[in-house]
Amino acid sequence: MAKVIAINAGSSSLKFQLFDMPSEEVVTKGLVERIGLDNSVFTISVNDEKQEEITDIADHAVAVKMLLNKLTDLNIIESLDEIEGIGHRVVHGGELFNDSVLITEETLEQIEELSDLAPLHNPANLVGIQAFQEVLPNIQAVAVFDTAFHQSMPEQSFLYSLPYEYYEKYGIRKYGFHGTSHKYVSQRAAELLGRPVEQLRLLSCHLGNGASIAAIEGGKSIDTSMGFTPLAGVAMGTRSGNIDPALIPFIMGKTGKTADEVLDILNKKSGLLGVSGLSSDLRDIQQAAEAGNDRARTALEVFANRIHKYIGSYAARMSGIDAIIFTAGIGENSIEIRSRVLKGLEFMGVYWDPALNEVRGEEAFISYPHSPVKVLIIPTNEEVMIARDVVRLTQ
Amino acid sequence: MAKVIAINAGSSSLKFQLFDMPSEEVVTKGLVERIGLDNSVFTISVNDEKQEEITDIADHAVAVKMLLNKLTDLNIIESLDEIEGIGHRVVHGGELFNDSVLITEETLEQIEELSDLAPLHNPANLVGIQAFQEVLPNIQAVAVFDTAFHQSMPEQSFLYSLPYEYYEKYGIRKYGFHGTSHKYVSQRAAELLGRPVEQLRLLSCHLGNGASIAAIEGGKSIDTSMGFTPLAGVAMGTRSGNIDPALIPFIMGKTGKTADEVLDILNKKSGLLGVSGLSSDLRDIQQAAEAGNDRARTALEVFANRIHKYIGSYAARMSGIDAIIFTAGIGENSIEIRSRVLKGLEFMGVYWDPALNEVRGEEAFISYPHSPVKVLIIPTNEEVMIARDVVRLTQ
Repeated sequence: MAKVIAINAGSSSLKFQLFDMPSEEVVTKGLVERIGLDNSVFTISVNDEKQEEITDIADHAVAVKMLLNKLTDLNIIESLDEIEGIGHRVVHGGELFNDSVLITEETLEQIEELSDLAPLHNPANLVGIQAFQEVLPNIQAVAVFDTAFHQSMPEQSFLYSLPYEYYEKYGIRKYGFHGTSHKYVSQRAAELLGRPVEQLRLLSCHLGNGASIAAIEGGKSIDTSMGFTPLAGVAMGTRSGNIDPALIPFIMGKTGKTADEVLDILNKKSGLLGVSGLSSDLRDIQQAAEAGNDRARTALEVFANRIHKYIGSYAARMSGIDAIIFTAGIGENSIEIRSRVLKGLEFMGVYWDPALNEVRGEEAFISYPHSPVKVLIIPTNEEVMIARDVVRLTQ
Repeated sequence: MAKVIAINAGSSSLKFQLFDMPSEEVVTKGLVERIGLDNSVFTISVNDEKQEEITDIADHAVAVKMLLNKLTDLNIIESLDEIEGIGHRVVHGGELFNDSVLITEETLEQIEELSDLAPLHNPANLVGIQAFQEVLPNIQAVAVFDTAFHQSMPEQSFLYSLPYEYYEKYGIRKYGFHGTSHKYVSQRAAELLGRPVEQLRLLSCHLGNGASIAAIEGGKSIDTSMGFTPLAGVAMGTRSGNIDPALIPFIMGKTGKTADEVLDILNKKSGLLGVSGLSSDLRDIQQAAEAGNDRARTALEVFANRIHKYIGSYAARMSGIDAIIFTAGIGENSIEIRSRVLKGLEFMGVYWDPALNEVRGEEAFISYPHSPVKVLIIPTNEEVMIARDVVRLTQ
């Protein structure tokens, strides 16, 4: 049986999921945390039970060796020969990659060059790739980019109205993120709707701690709310989303902070956390709002307002839509946010049933059967997309 | 007969319009430029003919005296006693003013305090007010704020998803601008539609060298595209509108510019000018695009794309709309931009006639008679709104 590993490497972490392909069955999954620190934590699921081991893991290569040993020691696989390929999530593919790609010396260099655009993420992704190359040098690996799905955006969507040479010289444009998730749910929506994705205009709402909206026409992303970085677009757990750009110099003047310090506040102290003053976690905010906290209620309103408006915006962008998709933590689970976001969209053909909306974490239609625009909940699955691309590109 | 003067003072300029009230007839209008510089220019229309005089005008008080002398010398009015009131455009009313106000010592101080929010505009507006106080100390004056109409926005619209204390401490929120224009066209639209404004959901597109969109529900602004400053929202002649805020530190890093220098580029070198590399004037861009210039075509697409998306966004905000209004230089005159902006909005009930759209600078319906959503062109008239407020508040 062919096995494929999907990897998401952070600077001190490594998430993994082992698939049997082409059945797409998840054989095991887990997470290594605190790599390079003391008391690293290795967690793996075996037969739906989590096993945790605390030990010192010096670097990502050590983490990979430990993972591979576990796979055989725990009899999850008989031999490493079963592993046919490895897929790595890479955040930024710039304009170089509009699809996943087999990792070669050349692509590695390209991913490294793109670190300029994603200084926090691409280097960490590279460390994960290199750790597997060191331990399993003969197994083919594939890079799957968060940005690739959005490379189909036309110029009128991706170009900022800034001096054009900023695009030419520095690559300043909208890239968009969460592409693997938007692609997965759009393909799955087509299956659930029983129509070819090429004929559909889909509005995908990936609402997690990070959140983005995408306009997907004929299976291709034609616009998305995140921008040059994942800060742009809707309000998020701790990110501001779009604000008047003139606020950065104004806040610098008022607080004496540098531009980078203000940017840090926009990324880490804003969004739900900033408005509520309580938490970046939507569940905490909902609880506080129910208990009568005004600022928590305002935070919910601001959060939902921005998403609601993007739906109208992207419906106009596609001259109407066939379906709205909710995915990721909040999209899959928050009955209240979905309800606030969908309220008052009847004018564009969205009729939904509050009773059907009372669902969490599973595939479901929440629009009425007669609604011209369908509304679906689809739990995202970026890992299976990675595994599929590994199979497609290594065969 | 009662006469009212509407004034718009800049740092070295003074625009004036003299109304007969309540007939609202424009008796004369004109402009003083290069105040405080040599070769100042005084222009005044008499019986539809422009008279120009070049002379040195030392300050705004001198300009006001010259204006008043001209009014009697040219027999436009018999005596200054006919002037019943003066209305001054003031850019920023902050949260202190949700309507026009009689100018008193207290309001003058408040307008001065608000200079922090509009450092380029409020001080210049104050100079104009003080010049008239000096020359005509006994005539009542009224301040009409660009921001006042938008003070009806609810918190979910005006609050940025930033740390809440920035709102409390520094007044950081969305204020919106062009309020007098949005108010005028929304009231005029209600008249043209033959329905009370209280029953209407109107989408007002003020498209000039500066451009903003407003969602006006029941006669009140509930959202608008400009923000803390007039930089935010759609792309404009030289302004970027919304961009990923993370771009400011990124551009600083790449170019070695300060935050204020980057802000200057966003205000003065971006928008149509930045994308096209040619001009900030839409007419130049249209000509170049027709002549085959690709970047000019892209600039048009980017410009129209942002407005088109705001229409969808604000339609969602109001759960559908009754009418779309185009006003200001581009809105009143650009057949092409209106056409690009309106294309593909049938899904929300907007059916418009390309033949009716072939009109410039006059009131017109360009939607089909059967269209559920009406589309109107309404030339804006901020001056008459100022004159009306003078009459309302001084009587």
